[in-house]
Order: sequence, then structure tokens, then C-alpha cells
Amino acid sequence: MAPNLDGYFKQVDDLGDAFIERLRKAVAIPSISAEDARRPDVVRMGNWLAAELKSLGAEVELRPLGKQPHKEHLELPPVVVARYGRDTAKRTILVYGHYDVQPAEKSDGWATEPFELTLDDKGRMFGRGSTDDKGPVLGWLNAIEAHQKAGVDFPVNLLMCFEGMEEYGSEGLDDFIRAEAGKYFADTDAVCISDNYWLGTEKPCLTYGLRGCNYYSVEVSGPAADLHSGVFGGQAHEPMTDVAHLFSKLVDSKGNILIPGISEQVAPVTADEESLYSSIAFTMANLHESLGSKTTIHETEKPTLMARWRYPSLSLHGIEGAFASPGAKTVIPAKVIGKFSIRTVPDMDIDKTNAAVIKYIQDEFAKLNSKNTLKAECMHAGKWWVASPKHWNFSAAAKAVERVWGVAPDFTREGGSIPVTLTFEEATGKNVLLLPMGSSTDGAHSINEKLDKRNYIEGIKLLGAYLHYVAEEPQT
Amino acid sequence: MAPNLDGYFKQVDDLGDAFIERLRKAVAIPSISAEDARRPDVVRMGNWLAAELKSLGAEVELRPLGKQPHKEHLELPPVVVARYGRDTAKRTILVYGHYDVQPAEKSDGWATEPFELTLDDKGRMFGRGSTDDKGPVLGWLNAIEAHQKAGVDFPVNLLMCFEGMEEYGSEGLDDFIRAEAGKYFADTDAVCISDNYWLGTEKPCLTYGLRGCNYYSVEVSGPAADLHSGVFGGQAHEPMTDVAHLFSKLVDSKGNILIPGISEQVAPVTADEESLYSSIAFTMANLHESLGSKTTIHETEKPTLMARWRYPSLSLHGIEGAFASPGAKTVIPAKVIGKFSIRTVPDMDIDKTNAAVIKYIQDEFAKLNSKNTLKAECMHAGKWWVASPKHWNFSAAAKAVERVWGVAPDFTREGGSIPVTLTFEEATGKNVLLLPMGSSTDGAHSINEKLDKRNYIEGIKLLGAYLHYVAEEPQT
Repeated sequence: MAPNLDGYFKQVDDLGDAFIERLRKAVAIPSISAEDARRPDVVRMGNWLAAELKSLGAEVELRPLGKQPHKEHLELPPVVVARYGRDTAKRTILVYGHYDVQPAEKSDGWATEPFELTLDDKGRMFGRGSTDDKGPVLGWLNAIEAHQKAGVDFPVNLLMCFEGMEEYGSEGLDDFIRAEAGKYFADTDAVCISDNYWLGTEKPCLTYGLRGCNYYSVEVSGPAADLHSGVFGGQAHEPMTDVAHLFSKLVDSKGNILIPGISEQVAPVTADEESLYSSIAFTMANLHESLGSKTTIHETEKPTLMARWRYPSLSLHGIEGAFASPGAKTVIPAKVIGKFSIRTVPDMDIDKTNAAVIKYIQDEFAKLNSKNTLKAECMHAGKWWVASPKHWNFSAAAKAVERVWGVAPDFTREGGSIPVTLTFEEATGKNVLLLPMGSSTDGAHSINEKLDKRNYIEGIKLLGAYLHYVAEEPQT
Repeated sequence: MAPNLDGYFKQVDDLGDAFIERLRKAVAIPSISAEDARRPDVVRMGNWLAAELKSLGAEVELRPLGKQPHKEHLELPPVVVARYGRDTAKRTILVYGHYDVQPAEKSDGWATEPFELTLDDKGRMFGRGSTDDKGPVLGWLNAIEAHQKAGVDFPVNLLMCFEGMEEYGSEGLDDFIRAEAGKYFADTDAVCISDNYWLGTEKPCLTYGLRGCNYYSVEVSGPAADLHSGVFGGQAHEPMTDVAHLFSKLVDSKGNILIPGISEQVAPVTADEESLYSSIAFTMANLHESLGSKTTIHETEKPTLMARWRYPSLSLHGIEGAFASPGAKTVIPAKVIGKFSIRTVPDMDIDKTNAAVIKYIQDEFAKLNSKNTLKAECMHAGKWWVASPKHWNFSAAAKAVERVWGVAPDFTREGGSIPVTLTFEEATGKNVLLLPMGSSTDGAHSINEKLDKRNYIEGIKLLGAYLHYVAEEPQT
């Protein structure tokens, strides 16, 4: 039975200006986690958020994470954890967000002051953190407030986990989540994260998958120091030559991975999965606009989205130790380190993939008959994540989208990784849903970051509606 | 008939301390051409040199070269030109050297003050410019003085050309040499340059060839801006992939150039040339020491020296625009510029080589079927130089080496380029000889640059003896 949401929705509309004012206050605190000097502002932002939550009647704790690794003079900002509701008859939803932001200076090219929320006549609300991730975080608070003022019973118990280091690698958070999985987060029934974006600008989506990433270094060394190519060219095996040959064996110009043992691990496309692609709001023109060029490998949407979401890709990032500046330098670099990474997908195994990659590089290097020395290794690896979009967590969200936006959502994956997603899934053992509020043009890490007023206000309705459908959705 | 040089030699020995004192004064002037703030010291050095020459009775002129290109607030230091002797019955030898030096700071790692000439108990005279090139330049002045004090007639007319910008690309010098070829340098019979080094530490050499250098850029561009490999990996043609494939087609790990039309241009080895290699004082151990590794392509000396001197080589220098720092960055670079160069040898033609290289890169790029955009071009090119070691200029020098050092010199080439050599040859149309004073361990551009006292004193004898043999050598 569809929940009665009219009173809640009207209250959200009535409180719209107050909710924008709340966002304005949040944006005004420059909580830049990557800049040491801004650490007090990050902490201030955490305290402000905790105070807002308390004023709404939530139980709040500021949990310290200790010193920042490699920067022992800095304390990590606290994790703000909060609980709203303790009714054992209700489902408990754990939501995650972050209250820190990317760096921003007006001089970077912003049209407005980055830490002053500025609305234009198209309803765009410009400001650092507006969409990433202060708008969505405040969405949960606003949903609570609108329920209270509308006199509507809150449909679930809400557990909240808001961190202050997301834009700097979420330092310390994984350990915290794992430690609290059986404690603070123990009665979680499902997880919802609002920290990604619609695929386009018009159609909402629910995100059920992310690719993983295995990052590799291929170091080739020869002489003890850089050489002059005039004096030594032609007499010694050159590490750059070896790395160029190895790079050329990894991937072809059409993006095909040439390493045996990779494609064999990729899960076949099922009919269920394939059916999700047909209606997705995405055109090649969208991609051409994002790229700023028409240099796409595929000509149509479906293989393009599959390449982004469900097939692995290999990118050559660059070479450390070689000549990389403008101009002409006649150097033979003594030691070069090629960097590349593979985006991984179900059912690729990290260790099996690493073994295949390293063995292949070693075999190809042996074929070169070079006297140089090779060292190939995986620098870091993060697993892919795929949730079941058939879970009640997703079906509840899908119904909420239809109710608020009048359209069935796209079920999407993303090509990149949001590591905390997998951490929550593994630590709690529960279904995780990515429920975005902003759209593809928000420019999360760019200048002129914005959140459309419409996405903010309807997004608040969506978060609340989602919780109501969660309360009604049968077990799956 | 061997000239009587005993009186001259004895005088050089007697004046040894005074000559070292002259070098000490020269080294004390930090004439660093690459540092704007040192420009007055470079000019002071030129003036000091001119004054020394005048005190020896030479006719001296300081020739201005105008403003420094791209640094219009700086005057280029003057070229010091001088003439010693105007006897039309004598041959006229034009000698070149430079009075500027490389940068040096004690804090770079020098064991002594770089601008204080410091002798150690092994007879090494440490100081910036000691061997490059103040020692050799003063060698000519010392030779004049020793002739005067010994009462020995100077055997030739000596034209001198000493510049102050060699360590900064010899700005303005080429035009000056060409302009003066028919004027100040008009009666030149041959040219001698003492600005290179012995192949090793024990055996003198005469240098008759240098390789040229064609430097190329291979730019591949695709998207309008750098991309995130998570979001876009697998969907667009990646410029780095294309450059890696192009690089792998240029040269193999054994240094073989894979571009058609290059090796076809290389002059065959003649029996005359081959005979010069048999006695050369060079071992694979020397090369291993220089490299700091045993990663040599060839196993024996002769093919190694031929690879350095008389065959082309291709070195991949690096990639501009890609990720080049330590760490792991998941970027797809939007535009990358591969840099490589070919060391050229007789009879390679610059234009023909460029045409072959560019066409080959374009053909190989077409095979990749990439939608990216290619721009390949030659950034700069300098021609190789080979002189006839049978010319009287060389045979005179060879006899002088035998007389002073008691051993026949090695006839060597060098892998790198000294562009002024070719300029003098082309402008004057005369034979050019490279007659080094210092040895391979002098560390010309390094910390702890030195000139051995033995090489300095015997080198002064050698320069004088060379001029005596020049005077007697029959026309070739």
C-alpha cells in the first residue's frame, strides 16, 4: 500500500527556504580536509552538524579517529554518529555521508565566492560542498525536521555516519566501520548512501554497482644514474625502451586488454542485467559532451555503458622517472616506473588478477632479452561492488523515485569506485543502496560546484519517501 | 724534420707554478653564463682574459653580441677575439674556447670551494672551469708566454675566439662566426678546439667526428581535458595507449632502430676507418664503470665504440602531459607528447631522416585505428660532423702527442654533439681538429670538477708542439 506522503511533501515545500538556509550555513564553513590549515574548520563543521542533529532530537556522538597517518601533528576530524528512533518494530536504516569538501579558491576560476551559497535565476545553488556532500547529508536532517513539523511518524530508525575525511581517502573510517558493525551499527537492516550523481540531468537513478581498481607499477632500471643520450645512446639497454614495449603489450588502441586471464574472469551478461540497459537515459551525445571530443571506442550507448560499468578497462597513466617537462632534453633515464591500472568487475578476483598481470609482464619482459632489471607489483587494489537491485532496499527506493519524480529510475552502475560502499556491505552484511540527490552537471570536484534547488527540495522528499517505502516493503 | 722543442718544454716546466697561478685567478671569477645575476662576473672574466692577452702582446678585441634572446634586459657577454702574429709566411691557426662555466655551489656537494682552485696530493686541481674550459683556454696563453720567455719564435699566426655563453647554448655565436669567416677569421688555414676529453685517463686522443641529433615530439590528443579512469576507462581512445604503441615501434630493446630509411643512409665502414679502432684505449670495464651497471648491448669494445661513434641510435626520453610523479593517480591524460631523438651519423641527411621518421609514425598511427589526433614533428636538428684524420692538421697534432706523451694518440669520435665544431668547418671551409687537454674523469659538468696538473702542464706543451708541427707539416 502506498504510504500517505502528502503532508510530509507539503511540509518540505513549506520549509524550503529554511532548508536552503541550513545549507548556506554548512557551505559557509570551509571544511577542506586536504588542507592542514583548514583542519579546525573541518572540526567546526563536525561540531555544527552534531549540534543540528541534537536540536532535532537525535542521539549524537563525536567519535575521535586519532592522529592522521603520516601527519602526526594533526588530529583526524571526528566521525559524527547519530541515532534517531529506537523502535524495535521498525526497520533500521544506516545512512552515510561526509561533511568535508574539496579545496576551493575564488581565484581557481569560480564565478562566485565558493563558500557563499549563491542562487541564480535558473535555481542553481553554487557553493563548495553544495552537492558533494553537504546537500545530501542535510537532506536526512531536513527529512527528520519535516516529519516533526508535519506531525508524521518517522517510519524507520535512522542510524547516521557522517565522516570528515572523505576527500582525503577516508582516513581511519574503514577500521571504524568494521569496529562498530557489531556495536553502534548492530541493528542495521540496510544501508543507504547519497554521495553520487544521476547519469544525466533529467532522470533519477539508483546505483547498484561500482568497478574496483587494481593499480600497478612496472619499474625498469639499468644504469646507476641518468645518462646523456649522445654519449651512451646505442650502447646500453634503455629502461624507457623496455617500458614502452611492455606498455604496448598491455592494451590495444581500442581498449582491449591483452593480458591472458582477465576477460576469462568476467561474469557473463544475464538477461536480467541486460534488461536494465534498454531504458537508460544516456546518449552518445552525453558522452561526447563529457569527453569534449568524439573519440569514443563504441558507436552506441549499450556497449559504451557496459564498457563503463561491467567490463574491465586498462589505462596507462604515465611514467615516473622519465623526462616529463616541456622542451627537449637528451636524457636516457636510468630508472623509470610505468603506472597503469585495471578497473575490475564481477567476478574478477584481486589476487588472481594480480598474479595474471605480474606473470604476463615478467614473461613479456623476458622476451625482450634486456639486461635491465624489472620489478612489477600491484600498488593497491580495491574490489568491485555489485548489489542486488531486486532487494527491498532498492525496490523501496524505486517506488519513492516514481512517487517523487513521476518516473521509474534508471538502475545504474558506475565506472569508478566508492570504497566505503564495499566496506559497509562487508562489515554489516546488509544490502547497500546508492541513492543520488544531484545530477551529472553538478561539478562535484570542479569550480562552480552547484546543486539545483529542485534536486535539493525534491531530494529531501525522496529521502523521506524512501524511508516510508522501506517501512512497507516486504522482505526479499 | 722534428722541431726542436726542448727549450720551450723546459720553459713550460719552469713556469708551471705561474701557469697554475693564472688558472687560479681565472677559476676565482664565477663566470656562470646560465645565471642572470652572474652576468657581470662573466663580463669581468672576458675583460680579464682580454687583459692577459694584451699583456702577452696579442691584438685583442671585445666584440659585443647584443641583447640575450628571450632575456632582453641582459647583454650577452662579448666574444674575445685576438690575433698573435701577422707573418704571411706562417700558417694561421684559429683556436676556439670558452671562458664561461657551469653553475656551482659548495652545497651541491663539492668537497672544496668551487671557485677556489685547490690542489690535492694526487696532483688534481679542483675548481669549476678548471678543465671546462679555462684550463685549455689559458693553455694557448701559456704557450705564447713560454715561447716568449724561452726566446723561441712562435711557429704560426694564432687567431683566437673565446666566447662567454657556451654553457648556455652559445647564444649569438653562430651568426658571429659566419659573419667573421671572411673578415677576422679570413686567413685561417685550420681550426683547433680544445674543449673535449680523452676517452679514458691514460691515453691522449684526437677527435675527428661527432654525431648529430634530430629531436622529435609525438603529440597524441583526444579528450578536451584529463579524464578519470574509473568513469571513462574503456569508453574512449586513450592518447597514452597510442603513444606507448608508437614508442614500441621505434626501437627495440637491443637498440635497433625500426624505422625504414635510417640504416640505409649510414656510410659503410671503410678499411681505413676500421683500422683506427684496433688500438683504442677503451675496455668494456671502462663502460661498465661509466654506466654503473653491466647493462651493455654489445659484449666487446669495437661494436660498442662503433655504436657510440658511427652508428645512429634512438633514445626515448619521456612523455610530457602524462602522470609523472610518485604515487598512484588514476588519470587518463588528455594530451601526451612523447619525446625521442635520433643520434645521426654520416651520411644521414637531416631532411631525409625527418621525412622517413614522420611518415613512419603517421603510418603506424594509422594502423592503430585510433580516433585520437596525431602531430609528429622534428623539434630541432643538428648535423653530424666528421673531419679527415689524414689532414695535416691531425697529423701535426698526432706527432705532437707522440712527442709530448710518448704514445700515438687514439683517433676518436664522440657520440654527442659540439655544434660549434660544424659551424667553424662550414663557415671557414677548413679542417677542424678537436684536441683535448683533460681526461675522462674530470667531471666537466659535475661537482668536484678538476684538471690534473699533469694534463695541464703537458697539455700546454702539447698545444705549443702542435703549432710547431703544424708549421712543418706538408700540405695534404
